[in-house]
Amino acid sequence: MLEKKLENIIKKNRHLIKEGHVADYIPALSKVDPNYIGISISDIDGNIYKAGDYNTKFTIQSISKIIGLMLALKDNGEDYYFSKVGCEPTDEPFNTLYKMDLKNQKPANPMINSGAIITTSLIKGNKEEKFNRIIEFIRLIAENPGITYNEEVYLSEKYTGDKNRAIAYLMKSKGLLEGEVEDILDTYFKQCSIEVTAVDLAKIGLFIARRCPLDLEGRIENERMAAIVTAIMTTCGMYDFSGQYAATVGIPSKSGVGGGILATIPNKLGIGVFSPALDKFGNSIAGYGIMKDLSRELNLNIF
Amino acid sequence: MLEKKLENIIKKNRHLIKEGHVADYIPALSKVDPNYIGISISDIDGNIYKAGDYNTKFTIQSISKIIGLMLALKDNGEDYYFSKVGCEPTDEPFNTLYKMDLKNQKPANPMINSGAIITTSLIKGNKEEKFNRIIEFIRLIAENPGITYNEEVYLSEKYTGDKNRAIAYLMKSKGLLEGEVEDILDTYFKQCSIEVTAVDLAKIGLFIARRCPLDLEGRIENERMAAIVTAIMTTCGMYDFSGQYAATVGIPSKSGVGGGILATIPNKLGIGVFSPALDKFGNSIAGYGIMKDLSRELNLNIF
Amino acid sequence: MLEKKLENIIKKNRHLIKEGHVADYIPALSKVDPNYIGISISDIDGNIYKAGDYNTKFTIQSISKIIGLMLALKDNGEDYYFSKVGCEPTDEPFNTLYKMDLKNQKPANPMINSGAIITTSLIKGNKEEKFNRIIEFIRLIAENPGITYNEEVYLSEKYTGDKNRAIAYLMKSKGLLEGEVEDILDTYFKQCSIEVTAVDLAKIGLFIARRCPLDLEGRIENERMAAIVTAIMTTCGMYDFSGQYAATVGIPSKSGVGGGILATIPNKLGIGVFSPALDKFGNSIAGYGIMKDLSRELNLNIF
Amino acid sequence: MLEKKLENIIKKNRHLIKEGHVADYIPALSKVDPNYIGISISDIDGNIYKAGDYNTKFTIQSISKIIGLMLALKDNGEDYYFSKVGCEPTDEPFNTLYKMDLKNQKPANPMINSGAIITTSLIKGNKEEKFNRIIEFIRLIAENPGITYNEEVYLSEKYTGDKNRAIAYLMKSKGLLEGEVEDILDTYFKQCSIEVTAVDLAKIGLFIARRCPLDLEGRIENERMAAIVTAIMTTCGMYDFSGQYAATVGIPSKSGVGGGILATIPNKLGIGVFSPALDKFGNSIAGYGIMKDLSRELNLNIF
Repeated sequence: MLEKKLENIIKKNRHLIKEGHVADYIPALSKVDPNYIGISISDIDGNIYKAGDYNTKFTIQSISKIIGLMLALKDNGEDYYFSKVGCEPTDEPFNTLYKMDLKNQKPANPMINSGAIITTSLIKGNKEEKFNRIIEFIRLIAENPGITYNEEVYLSEKYTGDKNRAIAYLMKSKGLLEGEVEDILDTYFKQCSIEVTAVDLAKIGLFIARRCPLDLEGRIENERMAAIVTAIMTTCGMYDFSGQYAATVGIPSKSGVGGGILATIPNKLGIGVFSPALDKFGNSIAGYGIMKDLSRELNLNIF
Repeated sequence: MLEKKLENIIKKNRHLIKEGHVADYIPALSKVDPNYIGISISDIDGNIYKAGDYNTKFTIQSISKIIGLMLALKDNGEDYYFSKVGCEPTDEPFNTLYKMDLKNQKPANPMINSGAIITTSLIKGNKEEKFNRIIEFIRLIAENPGITYNEEVYLSEKYTGDKNRAIAYLMKSKGLLEGEVEDILDTYFKQCSIEVTAVDLAKIGLFIARRCPLDLEGRIENERMAAIVTAIMTTCGMYDFSGQYAATVGIPSKSGVGGGILATIPNKLGIGVFSPALDKFGNSIAGYGIMKDLSRELNLNIF
Repeated sequence: MLEKKLENIIKKNRHLIKEGHVADYIPALSKVDPNYIGISISDIDGNIYKAGDYNTKFTIQSISKIIGLMLALKDNGEDYYFSKVGCEPTDEPFNTLYKMDLKNQKPANPMINSGAIITTSLIKGNKEEKFNRIIEFIRLIAENPGITYNEEVYLSEKYTGDKNRAIAYLMKSKGLLEGEVEDILDTYFKQCSIEVTAVDLAKIGLFIARRCPLDLEGRIENERMAAIVTAIMTTCGMYDFSGQYAATVGIPSKSGVGGGILATIPNKLGIGVFSPALDKFGNSIAGYGIMKDLSRELNLNIF
Repeated sequence: MLEKKLENIIKKNRHLIKEGHVADYIPALSKVDPNYIGISISDIDGNIYKAGDYNTKFTIQSISKIIGLMLALKDNGEDYYFSKVGCEPTDEPFNTLYKMDLKNQKPANPMINSGAIITTSLIKGNKEEKFNRIIEFIRLIAENPGITYNEEVYLSEKYTGDKNRAIAYLMKSKGLLEGEVEDILDTYFKQCSIEVTAVDLAKIGLFIARRCPLDLEGRIENERMAAIVTAIMTTCGMYDFSGQYAATVGIPSKSGVGGGILATIPNKLGIGVFSPALDKFGNSIAGYGIMKDLSRELNLNIF
């Protein structure tokens, strides 16, 4: 019966696809069929509900910032991590850099590119180890050992990533970023190219909802990490639309320009949505419609 | 037993006062004794718990932005209201104006001064009616007909309010603000000068927690208004510290430079805290400590 | 023969009027007939050459910033004056204010509105005295005791001057501006409304070219004042087109949105041009064409 | 007798060295002895006057922007060149980049790093040819075939040039810069490392003063190129101190963080000054004092 509801929600929101556009700033992304639309929900007991293209792979893109954040918090602890990356939402787009030039300040938060690039640099290990830890961590929490990355998207990101290079070199010149810029960016581009499905995202959402049950040793408690990640998803997860999303949906979420939305409700459930046509903020346009309906129909708004 | 806990939390956080400073940009505020510290909590059934200087009056300041927001939403409806004021948190201070000059854009959100001034302008009525509606609304939801405003603080704000004048005239020049600038500012300065206690704030928090049960006719449903207000408190309520506050406290809150903090947890409780020494963001420094402890000890973090 | 040349230059540039627009942000200015076009040149001996609508009155607008600058330099001396107003050209429009908010810095130079408003505040005297000194000074150096101001334009500027109010209140709030904001603005609006002709401007240009021969006592030498004013006209005189103007015309000049251009060549001559249709920077569009031709045909480029 | 005067001017300004600092952002520059101080003047007939350390080599740094500008104008013509680089002075420091992020606009002018990097990209030829043309052009106009570049400084600039990388990648990402970023930067770093003496600079100043007498074919006339270069030196040549320099010195000049100042007075003379201790704007601190004295004592102020 929940799956029936999910199907109806898909039906109701499919028309929104026409008003959006597949990401075009990365050539490899622009080739994706905009008509995919899928949902998956996992309840706290791990039961999975799904509808539409729940099994279609897409690149995780900015949702990987959540993964990187968890590893960097584990590796560095809360205090050190937030001495390097801020925790404030911003009304600037994800690829903003002007304030770092104007004010010499650390990145506003881990969900904009500058903050995410520093986050990647803070994950322990050399270039190869970093990426291996990231992909292994995703496989673990999504309970899917088959997760890999998309070589073509990775190369495309690498080839066209000049804005991210500008951001990274600016941070390097200001002493905000340590390490080899091209190595860090290489890991960053690769982590963005990891392929997941709506079901994978629902499971990652569930992992956070369950308060990050990890055996992993680290410099932060699981419960505390879950609270931080959920708070940051709420205030910064949907680019410079996060505030309006909180007021209209009210579910901690993180989107990526691959068309995915990861959502989590503490102690309750995880959600994965996929539909690659984006609105002007870079959020899945049908995905936003779906999340509004899920919030209302399943009474999920936390506010 | 809860009151005992509140007393202990006060005891534990009192030392923070020494690290903060009473607001000094408004002469009348700088005379306040920094040593006040009080808490009040109201559970969903309306039982009031209190400790310390819960009964001391202080000016509501920016917490009045929540009151103005509720009235303006009632008067104008969600769509019209948000066509005039944005809903995005910003990492800029509350009195920022540069982006409106640079980008010709509406105020980021209702919790920064520019957005709050437009909000006041959107409340129906002439200068006198606007203010009467505001103070009557506070009296109603705080269940305290004795609430008035502090004439000295009001005059002091009016006399020194040049940054707010700059903000208002800039918005006027850009076509973002309608009406007489000095009239709107007069109401704005007066609403900031309304005097409340921690108990009053707890009751206002309870009102929101109870989903704004109002008989008032208006262009928005009570439940929807409660969700919007709670979301905006979460993403924008603590000035440019809102993100860090969400990650460390996780309770929808709004602070004022008078030293008050209003907090609300949907369907659960309302909280009022008062301690006038502020940190560099303009938030009560002991108040923040208290909220962190309340969150942890009473298990109130919503994330 | 020079007048014949001037007539030909007018003929050649008249078509440009169609590509420009009369200033419309002040209602009283928008009523001006765009088809006026006039030139006047005064050689170092005081011989006046003229063509076209050289005798038509128009409001001086921003060219009054040069007058204010001279008086404020006389009253305050170079060191004190430049402790209050900068001397750097900016690539921002004349009514910019964002940097003062972002960086707490004094106005970039005396030719943008913020700098000009401070300049007016620095002229000695109360509101009436200030304005009397300004208009008497113009009458003196233009050798025209009949110069007055246009009441309708003045009231129109006053009524619609909200951006200037924003600038002034922002500076007041930052401690950059002293005195009563509305009084200073009143003088500022009035000085912008003074009516001159192209001949008046040529004589003012001649006065500067002759190194400001004044009996007036003051805190700066005439020669030094002339050099400063000429340098500032060169680097900042044509709004955020000053650099391109220097590279293409190469004559120290100051324009106003009334359509006037005042130009001066040290020890050589003064020029006044009038044509009210403006380009996007706020400079007279035919006036710029005329200045380019004068520069080339009379070999006046100082670079 | 002029050389005696120059010696006195050196004597008078030597004490300023103590208030300045040798450039330290490039390690190889920080090793330069701050006590050098030298002047050279060339009159229009080519007679050379000199005093102090006129024969000491130093790296040309930003003065090479003038060389690049001349070649790029020759190669591309005025219209095409200025479609890629603006011509407006800015009150921002030489390594600013925030406005390109905020406003998507081309660099303000050829004297800030962003504009100079585009200028280098516009010089015809591959990486090697570009640099060869630059150094050959300097040798030609300085009449000194022995001019070379400093390998250590070049490598030091390359190694620490992350802010320039950020600028270049940002421009690349916005479509403002064409070509391989690292190749363009390599040429840019190398051109900054060319070593000259005060005499070389005086001769380059003379070349411009003589209206760039070149047999070189190109898309711009020599006379026009001289006027443009002289105008840009006047409005933008001394970093964000250019306006104040124009008001106090009044001689078209370009400085470099190597401690050099190149100056030119149309149809009159060329000047080279060298003293490596810098003020906070990056201009030679004793050099500025020397230029003020030269302007006053030799009556060289063009305004």
